[in-house]
Amino acid sequence: MNKVEHIGIAVSDIKTASDIYEKLLNTGIYKTELVEQEGVETAFLKTGPNKIELLQATHADSPIAKFIAKKGEGIHHIAFEVDDIEAEMLRLKNEGFVLLSDKPKPGADNKLVCFVHPKSAGGVLVELCQEIKIA
Amino acid sequence: MNKVEHIGIAVSDIKTASDIYEKLLNTGIYKTELVEQEGVETAFLKTGPNKIELLQATHADSPIAKFIAKKGEGIHHIAFEVDDIEAEMLRLKNEGFVLLSDKPKPGADNKLVCFVHPKSAGGVLVELCQEIKIA
Repeated sequence: MNKVEHIGIAVSDIKTASDIYEKLLNTGIYKTELVEQEGVETAFLKTGPNKIELLQATHADSPIAKFIAKKGEGIHHIAFEVDDIEAEMLRLKNEGFVLLSDKPKPGADNKLVCFVHPKSAGGVLVELCQEIKIA
Repeated sequence: MNKVEHIGIAVSDIKTASDIYEKLLNTGIYKTELVEQEGVETAFLKTGPNKIELLQATHADSPIAKFIAKKGEGIHHIAFEVDDIEAEMLRLKNEGFVLLSDKPKPGADNKLVCFVHPKSAGGVLVELCQEIKIA
């Protein structure tokens, strides 16, 4: 794995959270994106080689709405950048990790993504992500 | 802020967690450290420019023991690297953030650290850290 690509933070109100994180990190939101199939609205900030992804639910059944209902606002997942997501998925499966999908799925920010079940990763929701290269 | 210096993960058993994270990140623990004044035993892994810090409580009153009792194992804090921690503390105080100490304190991994209260940072425990330069 190359680096922490981003840290996903579940927020109730993305406008309020964007104001807080812009002040905290002393930098602006550089991108927002709606990911319909995941039920999330996202906003991104950069801090050097890493990103912070703010996540607001778009409906009550969104995983983010359920997370906040259970745990409150806070850190939702860590995403690690990989060069070959299918190879990493296979490696992790062979190591006994439980993956939340059999194949990589399209995620926010032009990425192929796959999640690792928190039960197999010490309580942490881990995302693998690989940038989709446009030929 | 320069980058995500590390992500702190609260774990019940640092040996078990080290095994999991070594497999997950496909890299070994490169350092362990006992931080008596914080009541934590730590183990570090690298992923590119970032680190993962596993944190196990050394006694029942440790903040990590309290965190796990309340929320379970999982992500405890995000630490951002800064060049001048006192200047950043002043900037954040002026922006209305609540800091958990008036002055930087010595932390693990040869750092001066200061925490920002999660209530003022959207539910996230944020650490600022500056490397202690040895002349």
